[in-house]
Amino acid sequence: MARVDVAVIGAAGAIGRQVCVQLIERRIVPVSSRLQLVGRAGSDSASAVHGLRADLIDAYAEHAPLIDVALRPEEVVADVVVMAAGRTIPSRPGATIDRRALAADNRALFHSYAAALARDGGGHEVVIVVSNPVELAVSVFAEALGRHRVVGMGAWLDTLRFRHEIAGSLGVRRQGVGGFVVGQHGDGMVPLWSSVRFTGLTVDERVAAVARLRGSRTLGAFPAEVEDAKLALLELALTDMQAAFALIDTWPPDLRALARPWLTHQSGAKTASGTAGATVDLVDTVFDGREIVVAGQVALAGEISLAGRPVHTVAGVPIILGPEGWTRVVLDPLAPDEERRLAGVVTDIAASLTTEAS
Amino acid sequence: MARVDVAVIGAAGAIGRQVCVQLIERRIVPVSSRLQLVGRAGSDSASAVHGLRADLIDAYAEHAPLIDVALRPEEVVADVVVMAAGRTIPSRPGATIDRRALAADNRALFHSYAAALARDGGGHEVVIVVSNPVELAVSVFAEALGRHRVVGMGAWLDTLRFRHEIAGSLGVRRQGVGGFVVGQHGDGMVPLWSSVRFTGLTVDERVAAVARLRGSRTLGAFPAEVEDAKLALLELALTDMQAAFALIDTWPPDLRALARPWLTHQSGAKTASGTAGATVDLVDTVFDGREIVVAGQVALAGEISLAGRPVHTVAGVPIILGPEGWTRVVLDPLAPDEERRLAGVVTDIAASLTTEAS
Amino acid sequence: MARVDVAVIGAAGAIGRQVCVQLIERRIVPVSSRLQLVGRAGSDSASAVHGLRADLIDAYAEHAPLIDVALRPEEVVADVVVMAAGRTIPSRPGATIDRRALAADNRALFHSYAAALARDGGGHEVVIVVSNPVELAVSVFAEALGRHRVVGMGAWLDTLRFRHEIAGSLGVRRQGVGGFVVGQHGDGMVPLWSSVRFTGLTVDERVAAVARLRGSRTLGAFPAEVEDAKLALLELALTDMQAAFALIDTWPPDLRALARPWLTHQSGAKTASGTAGATVDLVDTVFDGREIVVAGQVALAGEISLAGRPVHTVAGVPIILGPEGWTRVVLDPLAPDEERRLAGVVTDIAASLTTEAS
Amino acid sequence: MARVDVAVIGAAGAIGRQVCVQLIERRIVPVSSRLQLVGRAGSDSASAVHGLRADLIDAYAEHAPLIDVALRPEEVVADVVVMAAGRTIPSRPGATIDRRALAADNRALFHSYAAALARDGGGHEVVIVVSNPVELAVSVFAEALGRHRVVGMGAWLDTLRFRHEIAGSLGVRRQGVGGFVVGQHGDGMVPLWSSVRFTGLTVDERVAAVARLRGSRTLGAFPAEVEDAKLALLELALTDMQAAFALIDTWPPDLRALARPWLTHQSGAKTASGTAGATVDLVDTVFDGREIVVAGQVALAGEISLAGRPVHTVAGVPIILGPEGWTRVVLDPLAPDEERRLAGVVTDIAASLTTEAS
Repeated sequence: MARVDVAVIGAAGAIGRQVCVQLIERRIVPVSSRLQLVGRAGSDSASAVHGLRADLIDAYAEHAPLIDVALRPEEVVADVVVMAAGRTIPSRPGATIDRRALAADNRALFHSYAAALARDGGGHEVVIVVSNPVELAVSVFAEALGRHRVVGMGAWLDTLRFRHEIAGSLGVRRQGVGGFVVGQHGDGMVPLWSSVRFTGLTVDERVAAVARLRGSRTLGAFPAEVEDAKLALLELALTDMQAAFALIDTWPPDLRALARPWLTHQSGAKTASGTAGATVDLVDTVFDGREIVVAGQVALAGEISLAGRPVHTVAGVPIILGPEGWTRVVLDPLAPDEERRLAGVVTDIAASLTTEAS
Repeated sequence: MARVDVAVIGAAGAIGRQVCVQLIERRIVPVSSRLQLVGRAGSDSASAVHGLRADLIDAYAEHAPLIDVALRPEEVVADVVVMAAGRTIPSRPGATIDRRALAADNRALFHSYAAALARDGGGHEVVIVVSNPVELAVSVFAEALGRHRVVGMGAWLDTLRFRHEIAGSLGVRRQGVGGFVVGQHGDGMVPLWSSVRFTGLTVDERVAAVARLRGSRTLGAFPAEVEDAKLALLELALTDMQAAFALIDTWPPDLRALARPWLTHQSGAKTASGTAGATVDLVDTVFDGREIVVAGQVALAGEISLAGRPVHTVAGVPIILGPEGWTRVVLDPLAPDEERRLAGVVTDIAASLTTEAS
Repeated sequence: MARVDVAVIGAAGAIGRQVCVQLIERRIVPVSSRLQLVGRAGSDSASAVHGLRADLIDAYAEHAPLIDVALRPEEVVADVVVMAAGRTIPSRPGATIDRRALAADNRALFHSYAAALARDGGGHEVVIVVSNPVELAVSVFAEALGRHRVVGMGAWLDTLRFRHEIAGSLGVRRQGVGGFVVGQHGDGMVPLWSSVRFTGLTVDERVAAVARLRGSRTLGAFPAEVEDAKLALLELALTDMQAAFALIDTWPPDLRALARPWLTHQSGAKTASGTAGATVDLVDTVFDGREIVVAGQVALAGEISLAGRPVHTVAGVPIILGPEGWTRVVLDPLAPDEERRLAGVVTDIAASLTTEAS
Repeated sequence: MARVDVAVIGAAGAIGRQVCVQLIERRIVPVSSRLQLVGRAGSDSASAVHGLRADLIDAYAEHAPLIDVALRPEEVVADVVVMAAGRTIPSRPGATIDRRALAADNRALFHSYAAALARDGGGHEVVIVVSNPVELAVSVFAEALGRHRVVGMGAWLDTLRFRHEIAGSLGVRRQGVGGFVVGQHGDGMVPLWSSVRFTGLTVDERVAAVARLRGSRTLGAFPAEVEDAKLALLELALTDMQAAFALIDTWPPDLRALARPWLTHQSGAKTASGTAGATVDLVDTVFDGREIVVAGQVALAGEISLAGRPVHTVAGVPIILGPEGWTRVVLDPLAPDEERRLAGVVTDIAASLTTEAS
């Protein structure tokens, strides 16, 4: 217990590597702790995690923690586990997600790591899920380990992006903006304009600023806006990537928060640094002793109700995250369009999980 | 709104200076923001804040934010205000606190700054109170500005010390320890053993660890333990300061958390860095956009009940602190000895405030 | 002149990306400066640099500097230019370097950027060369821009690795170890044991420590040791990468400094973070206002003599690097085996450059 | 040798305390190393260093290194020793320096620590001197320990200030400015305009910038300018400190570099943070393994000649500072007015030392 250790499952992948880099750069895993790079025996990653270990030590020398390598689920030993393994969505123009196929491919993988942790773990590991479909992974790990020890990082990434885009529109620092994105990571994200807060504004000034940013748009139209946005970008990106990114700049913050990373992925650059950033932020929170309000995908058991019905599925919500995992959901009353949209998304998630889980 | 500014009232004092140093060292006030050093026209500090400004720029060069000077309450302009001015308790062996005299001296000062902020401020300032008596100051500022915008830092300092001492006993990092100290800063602190959490332990392991650290002691005996501790230290400190500090090391964590800073103050060294550290931590939280669970002295309006009676006075409790101030109290159910002790302390605070406020 | 800007040519490559990440993570390019991501019009990188820009802003938000994109040599505008573009050596087991083919491929690229900088630049740019063959690139840029403005980072990377390996053998921090690797990056590196220094040791203790680490080996045998090492690793790596890395641990520090990154490259993991680390370190030095003694590949014009003959080619040597580039060579007298080995390497470099330059 | 330790002699003083704070804040003394706080048995500082220890641990918790206390010269054990003890110049308007009296008071103190280090030390300690008169202290320690192991920090502080003031005049970052101040700390400082360098400027642009900043002034008139400046400030400061600081802003950079800290000291605020900053910078350099060109007061033995005569006294010059202390003087050829002024200052130092040493 004298030190706190982190394991990164899928460390040799593009995101896994950036997670390791940021964990060390930001000194989140201190020198006296251990970072475990987990690859898969029999795959290319088995060799690459050894090389990654050498490269990280080469780069960070005495700032690097103890780094070791594991090649089997039962060898994973850590206090915080980042789950970043699994097949991913190809990064190139026009690539599409077949979520069902992805689920089929990754389900067994999720089960193998969850079962090993449940069987051989210390009973206290907190798991931060990056792999997709994140709701499926959260569901699998939560069932194996207890739901308070498992958090999907998608809602936090969406939340950081939403705050960043709002900050950009106002010309302020992202840290000066609060507020949450809930629901499902990706197209099912639900930006809660009602939760937006600003350092340095009175309540009246805040309400006026939000109205200015949002205009008369409601969440009812959001799915259609997203659809249109992707079509416009896809066409433009094929001939002029710069123009495609410039087009995004003309849109409102919530739409930008979804469209920009989507286009980044299409550009061939991947969103590895951004995704790693949000992940590492959650690891930092668990390490930090402080309880912090973040957004995260968690397995709900009636903590919130939508349209009068308690929610019993995985969804992104604001939670208090601390040393032992998450403890409370802290969702303030929603605006009507927010509640409607979130209820719809939650229904979709529940349906997907039913299909994917088997 | 493009930048977030901090004012430190009492910047030329020992704690105020360390607050400024840490705000800059930790880059909490970024280069593009403004740090206002507030001294008092007609006192030594009027000259010293100008010198402090020059020294800070000398030391931090391009890491320093814009630094300016104010010498009158009505000139204070900032988004976050640190209130560190006022007469303090002398730092030498045997010096005692006459809390009532301190209150009498500082009350007018608190009122002058609170009134100026209410009259000339932007209606959004968040005030972090360091000055003593902290409950009186919180009460005065809360009445002038609205209670959600005012937080006393004493409970957070006590909380950090409690976690640190527990971590020391277990040989772990402070960040691996959660838990809160509530009540009154100083002798009236109420360490909540029931709230202690650890990164990397299961619930059972945690319960066992707390039992080991705490033994059979309850909070009923805490006031007497504190009394005895001070007497023992006072005698020893006069002849052998090292032995006095060594004696503290033999005590349990909650008692150490109170005794160590008390003796530090007696040693002539002041607790300036530690006090500044907790203060700056709270400023950072307000700046950070994130909502974080901290402990702080706030003016309660029935958010908690003790012995069945809702509390309507200033007391240290766990709160969610964010961009617009504090929003919720997040106090989990207390153990019986905790509730009894906290109820007693709260009654004392209410009585003091009644006396001191006039 | 109010801000200092960096351009990374080849930003979308594996090393270029890590260079950008570290420049931002370490706050070397401050928020108020500009980071230019340079891709090549008509290649995949043209699209990817736009995506990289979005990802970096996503990840670093307000810590990110201004980031823009250039797609043509004549659009490169910066005070410090990192040259990381060009074909690289494949990263997989058994891949070999055909240095001559690499030179043939990259020569035109080096010329195009060097000519553009000479023609359109501000006359002050400092260029840090990462691309291979580094000696050829340094030679091309030095001729176009003046030799004091061009530094190859290979010798610094080798130097950091040598110090790190020595530190590892002694169980001390890398920062406690001084000393330089000169000559050619890669197999032609010349570790100067005579230059090794330690914080916290007397001269006698240092001499004894070096003798213990080095044994009776001299640089005369180093090329053969390297040859043998690679053969042994290559065979082992094909079946057991972990064992191959473990074998390296049994070797002396200078051999480890060469063998470990070589094997990392073979493992499929690339040495992107380590290479980026040394590069960013040099950028930091130029930005820092301080003059720092580093090792770097520079175009010598007789500053040093070997075996009585002044050196007029590109070679890695210790230099003072400062705001306007490098100013002095600070090579202390060499041991006989060091001088012999360096003379041999320098002759090889001169011969290669003659062939490759045309 | 596995860790590197620092002792701060005079830790309980205003500067000593800030040195400790910055050593920890900047993580220069890492968690695994030891920071020794040295007070004096029988004085107030004997008690205060124990309190300071508790306060630093309170403030920095797990970022703090091992901290211990020493109360006698023979107990000082460290790899780098900061000498900050001794009587200082009072900090208030009109306070003047009687350098001779200061020398008389502190000489014995310097001898006692130097003798103890020579007798009981490890033979490798590097001493950074802060105490005044710095030339006397450097002379005493250099004689006892060997001159390459002793550096006075005054010339580095003056150098940083000179760069900062130049940067301020040009609206650039201090790190973009190189150049050195040599000679004597304080009124005898010799700003070397010929050594000024800028990141991002060509040689021609640099020459033009320096000419613009400096005008037609030469160092011949500098002493008289300093004299006039102090008189003007002294008068103004008594009635309007703000106006006095504002007056300084109207002066050229070299004069500002001297006048601003002088006035800061007069304001009652002390220059503790700035002085600590330069000191900690030098400690960092010794810890860092890198050799860095800094300015420092060192005992010269003919490394430079002025007016044809080799210098054999203590003077501030640019040196390469590394793990084992300083190794070379790197003074480029001086302009005629610089050489004349430096020769005069050096003669004065030599004369003072002759008087003070006995």
